[in-house]
Amino acid sequence: MVVVMEERASEDQIQRVIAQLVDWGFDVHRSTGALRTVLGAVGGAQQSDPRLIELLDGVQEVVRITEPYKLASRTFKPENTVVVIGDLRVGGDEVIVMAGPCSAESEAQVEATAAAVRRAGAKVLRGGAFKPRSSPYSFQGLGEAGLQMLRSAADRQGMKLVSEVMDINQIELVARYADILQVGARNMQNFTLLRELGRTRKPVLLKRGISATIEEWLLSAEYLLAGGNADIILCERGIRTFESYTRNTLDLCAIPVVQKLSHLPIVVDPSHGTGRRDKVAPMARAAVAAGADGLIIEVHCDPDHAKSDGAQSLFPTDFDHLMAELRIIAPAIGRSICLEPVARRGWGV
Amino acid sequence: MVVVMEERASEDQIQRVIAQLVDWGFDVHRSTGALRTVLGAVGGAQQSDPRLIELLDGVQEVVRITEPYKLASRTFKPENTVVVIGDLRVGGDEVIVMAGPCSAESEAQVEATAAAVRRAGAKVLRGGAFKPRSSPYSFQGLGEAGLQMLRSAADRQGMKLVSEVMDINQIELVARYADILQVGARNMQNFTLLRELGRTRKPVLLKRGISATIEEWLLSAEYLLAGGNADIILCERGIRTFESYTRNTLDLCAIPVVQKLSHLPIVVDPSHGTGRRDKVAPMARAAVAAGADGLIIEVHCDPDHAKSDGAQSLFPTDFDHLMAELRIIAPAIGRSICLEPVARRGWGV
Amino acid sequence: MVVVMEERASEDQIQRVIAQLVDWGFDVHRSTGALRTVLGAVGGAQQSDPRLIELLDGVQEVVRITEPYKLASRTFKPENTVVVIGDLRVGGDEVIVMAGPCSAESEAQVEATAAAVRRAGAKVLRGGAFKPRSSPYSFQGLGEAGLQMLRSAADRQGMKLVSEVMDINQIELVARYADILQVGARNMQNFTLLRELGRTRKPVLLKRGISATIEEWLLSAEYLLAGGNADIILCERGIRTFESYTRNTLDLCAIPVVQKLSHLPIVVDPSHGTGRRDKVAPMARAAVAAGADGLIIEVHCDPDHAKSDGAQSLFPTDFDHLMAELRIIAPAIGRSICLEPVARRGWGV
Amino acid sequence: MVVVMEERASEDQIQRVIAQLVDWGFDVHRSTGALRTVLGAVGGAQQSDPRLIELLDGVQEVVRITEPYKLASRTFKPENTVVVIGDLRVGGDEVIVMAGPCSAESEAQVEATAAAVRRAGAKVLRGGAFKPRSSPYSFQGLGEAGLQMLRSAADRQGMKLVSEVMDINQIELVARYADILQVGARNMQNFTLLRELGRTRKPVLLKRGISATIEEWLLSAEYLLAGGNADIILCERGIRTFESYTRNTLDLCAIPVVQKLSHLPIVVDPSHGTGRRDKVAPMARAAVAAGADGLIIEVHCDPDHAKSDGAQSLFPTDFDHLMAELRIIAPAIGRSICLEPVARRGWGV
Repeated sequence: MVVVMEERASEDQIQRVIAQLVDWGFDVHRSTGALRTVLGAVGGAQQSDPRLIELLDGVQEVVRITEPYKLASRTFKPENTVVVIGDLRVGGDEVIVMAGPCSAESEAQVEATAAAVRRAGAKVLRGGAFKPRSSPYSFQGLGEAGLQMLRSAADRQGMKLVSEVMDINQIELVARYADILQVGARNMQNFTLLRELGRTRKPVLLKRGISATIEEWLLSAEYLLAGGNADIILCERGIRTFESYTRNTLDLCAIPVVQKLSHLPIVVDPSHGTGRRDKVAPMARAAVAAGADGLIIEVHCDPDHAKSDGAQSLFPTDFDHLMAELRIIAPAIGRSICLEPVARRGWGV
Repeated sequence: MVVVMEERASEDQIQRVIAQLVDWGFDVHRSTGALRTVLGAVGGAQQSDPRLIELLDGVQEVVRITEPYKLASRTFKPENTVVVIGDLRVGGDEVIVMAGPCSAESEAQVEATAAAVRRAGAKVLRGGAFKPRSSPYSFQGLGEAGLQMLRSAADRQGMKLVSEVMDINQIELVARYADILQVGARNMQNFTLLRELGRTRKPVLLKRGISATIEEWLLSAEYLLAGGNADIILCERGIRTFESYTRNTLDLCAIPVVQKLSHLPIVVDPSHGTGRRDKVAPMARAAVAAGADGLIIEVHCDPDHAKSDGAQSLFPTDFDHLMAELRIIAPAIGRSICLEPVARRGWGV
Repeated sequence: MVVVMEERASEDQIQRVIAQLVDWGFDVHRSTGALRTVLGAVGGAQQSDPRLIELLDGVQEVVRITEPYKLASRTFKPENTVVVIGDLRVGGDEVIVMAGPCSAESEAQVEATAAAVRRAGAKVLRGGAFKPRSSPYSFQGLGEAGLQMLRSAADRQGMKLVSEVMDINQIELVARYADILQVGARNMQNFTLLRELGRTRKPVLLKRGISATIEEWLLSAEYLLAGGNADIILCERGIRTFESYTRNTLDLCAIPVVQKLSHLPIVVDPSHGTGRRDKVAPMARAAVAAGADGLIIEVHCDPDHAKSDGAQSLFPTDFDHLMAELRIIAPAIGRSICLEPVARRGWGV
Repeated sequence: MVVVMEERASEDQIQRVIAQLVDWGFDVHRSTGALRTVLGAVGGAQQSDPRLIELLDGVQEVVRITEPYKLASRTFKPENTVVVIGDLRVGGDEVIVMAGPCSAESEAQVEATAAAVRRAGAKVLRGGAFKPRSSPYSFQGLGEAGLQMLRSAADRQGMKLVSEVMDINQIELVARYADILQVGARNMQNFTLLRELGRTRKPVLLKRGISATIEEWLLSAEYLLAGGNADIILCERGIRTFESYTRNTLDLCAIPVVQKLSHLPIVVDPSHGTGRRDKVAPMARAAVAAGADGLIIEVHCDPDHAKSDGAQSLFPTDFDHLMAELRIIAPAIGRSICLEPVARRGWGV
């Protein structure tokens, strides 16, 4: 930590600060300039609260000089992490598209949607069985029956499956069906859940909380990594700002920022990030152009009758069209995106 | 819901919207003005997603006309809710002060702090046994041992106890010791936890999430009320804004807003709301002047050596001084605040 | 406006609201449902303040049903506006790139930078002569001398010139040199300036304020249009949010939102939107992929010695590389971007 | 500035940074710890852009160690500034209340409102003659005629007058009538206006911009102080956040923060800070309890027919009631508030 003293700080005040830092185990380096003194403190207990120094007399500002996360940082691991799930590689050259309904509603709906997104080039099926809803009166998901439908559809289509875990008590159940366990935005700082997921050996897709800074998001990833789970995929899905025309403000600049700070792959969810079907395609294209490692998109075979989030779900034909656009964009930054549409290779035939 | 059609909307487009609303069970009232048509839709399924109408051709805007919460609203229950815990009444004429350490660290620390805050007029002891920390490397609390220390101190001082529950698996344990179960800001939308707490018969103190709108906060209260738990206390503790000088921006206007929309009592946490010891007293005074039903304040017998949040904890003497100021302010709005300091009545002797 | 009455509203309260609306000249349509009454008010004075109705007893909510802007809306003018400046068309099929230094510093610096960006495909030279700086001690620009340098360089390179006007007293001067007058983010609601610019016949590039909603931005465009100036280009340049890693959060979703609400062209400024050189290219690519009509980018022939904003200025070679990427992306959405680089056509030879 | 190098930074990278800092005139102090090197740079050109260092290889973070303002800081002037205007002292023991209509509409309206607020204890009349309105179609104020009405009413009531200046061309005119020149929130970074007002010798009331950090606000005050005008009063009036129930979020914690960082007096505007009449009194009380040096409140003799901002204007009787509450609160923090109501002293008789 670096402590900047006020111009008028007395020698006594400076000594008081040094004493406290030494007490915490820091090595203190003192620089005295014409106007003020700056103290550099290295080593020391990682969790010392800089605010306590800030409250001492004569202190102007205290600056933390290490990121509070370690395993998630590029300093710790300079090369990109690629999360490997069978033949799927998230974080490699290919931009991975995950798509499917907000929630599993019926065998037919899951199957029709899965087939449609697979045909267009999606490699991971998304779908929820437990829905966190802000109102207690909303549809709350089909539970295990939903997971079974999703798993069967994924298997028939040769896809991987990502599905949300809302609670530690659901981990075992969801892990039995899904290939990737999703942590929703509202649970990004549910530390009990994170700690438990750190102990599983399934990849985790960690959504950014709507008011989480990038640092807090990486700290939550640190909880997972610290538990021994190395397969973490970050997911930007919009932050809350004063602009209320869209549900959230998709922070696409988080892509290059995360790629500088961390080695973990990052995907983007333009469906929750905008909340409106007609804004999904522009933001999906923008995410790929900005360098995202993947997308997770809500598609429904009949959005007008969806039990949840129909307004932000794409029709299958919109999704086809979007995938064609993405195939043009990805090469601009040296990426590919399921270059040969599956249909042409005879899938599902 | 009210649907405002575009000026150029065709009769076909209008009929398409009406058909959808009728399909959802709404009664539709049509008003056609010189420039545009407005459709009023009443009745209908509560959970119909207005965004689906918004996506139809010819629609300019859709406005929801009922709050999505019901039991929490003043429309449903016009008179104030008073949460009664033994001889304590939260939401009545008296402003209730809850105070104590961020977390229980030792028998001596809990006892010294409890005695000090009781002497100054606090009626509820606050203190954590399980600490949700954004870093996995921080102090995580003493667990049940901490709860035992807090309970003994509260009993010795004749105080009630409020303590945080982080997970459904902790409910039973914490409820065995505490009088009020606290839901932290990060758990405000942990719906599994809310649903379970709705089934207990202990009062719940529900903190506002740092990026939660007042409506979302009341919806979370609705989860608790819908489960049958009527004793809910709301707690404003600061929201996240662009201003970073303080940790959060305490939204004191939430006090009169909540008091208009809901019958539930509301208290304020100026410690987390500011994050700095020297800002706690001004914001505590402001909260009482704005009409808060209570305060929850971090006080530590030795803040410089606190294991967590020492920087925002008051020294006991600061707390004494603050209570004296509050006793002058409360009567300005017809409230009292533990008018006769306990020490004079011979408490703890 | 639509007035939603509370469930318990009395007939007297309803009549009081109707009386006020009729007094303001509205036609009132009443819909009474099982639970509540909704009043639709059409016609009436445009500037009636809905908040006054909201304060009446028995009123739950008031909803404005017309956008407060008119000339800027797509309802008023369904087809896209193309701003034509000589052979340049902003808002047409071609994505227009504006580039150049933050501020004019010297003849040599302006010339070198202009030549470099022209060679890479930029068609408009950007550069400031008057700099609005948040500190009174910062470099404030070269004034008219700077404008002369920029104009000569633009002429030599066959480019148009965009430059900022900070005050009504500068309009005449800047208009003598520049082809497009820029209104900075801090002046987006300087209504005196907007009114005066509405009377000029030069195109205006209107930057979004860092805390302006899209509606407020379009209202500021309305000031310009209402004065008779039809050639308005909107410019998204980032909004202020809680995330402080980047200087601002670039709101790329504003592109499709504006394109739905308004007929005006929209360009994006990824330099101010991110504040850091290494984030400019990803956000520039994303903006084009999202459908922007153009870009405005800071490039400097020697960023490390720039007098202002060097940290967010691209090196000419970075800019070349970016333009090559953009030429791959633009066709994905049916746009082009100066397809034949100028150098190949022998410019500047 | 303090430069924190990455753990893996090479000696070459460190030397490159040192060279750049020395080139800018800094004295560089190097501290090398076990893990990383920290460079303290003192002296040097004040306007060096730390972001340029941040972009160098091997640099992890750069921290500025001086506030960018000087004259506005408490370091520069430790004792409180009291702005003296005749017998009025803003920033002294007395809490000064400024009140009056949003805008002057007629002789009768101004007179009736002025008499009412004077009777209740206000010492400064507020009122606008030029109104900055976000829509070009709204009432724009009476201009000089309005100023004349306000000045006569203030004189008759023995009050001072504060009125807004929107543009440098209005300064001379408004200064002829008003005792305090107000800079509106939208003009907080209109540097041309600030520079000119710095040259006048009238006190200036500087409102905080809705998205301005406290640092930016103090930098704007610095523009005024740097011009030689020492009589600056700061005014908190709400910031823009995600919460949309109230027009803005009043940041009352800005009061103690500003009082720590600066010597300038700070007043609060609860009318614009909330936008709704029924929230004004709670926030006015809270502001005084938090330590504000004054209040500026919109009061109208007939709010329901006000030409602007009627919804946030108090009725005179509400204002009376509020003043009585404030007289109880102010002594809690050792302040007074026009203790003897004017009527009792025979004013205006």
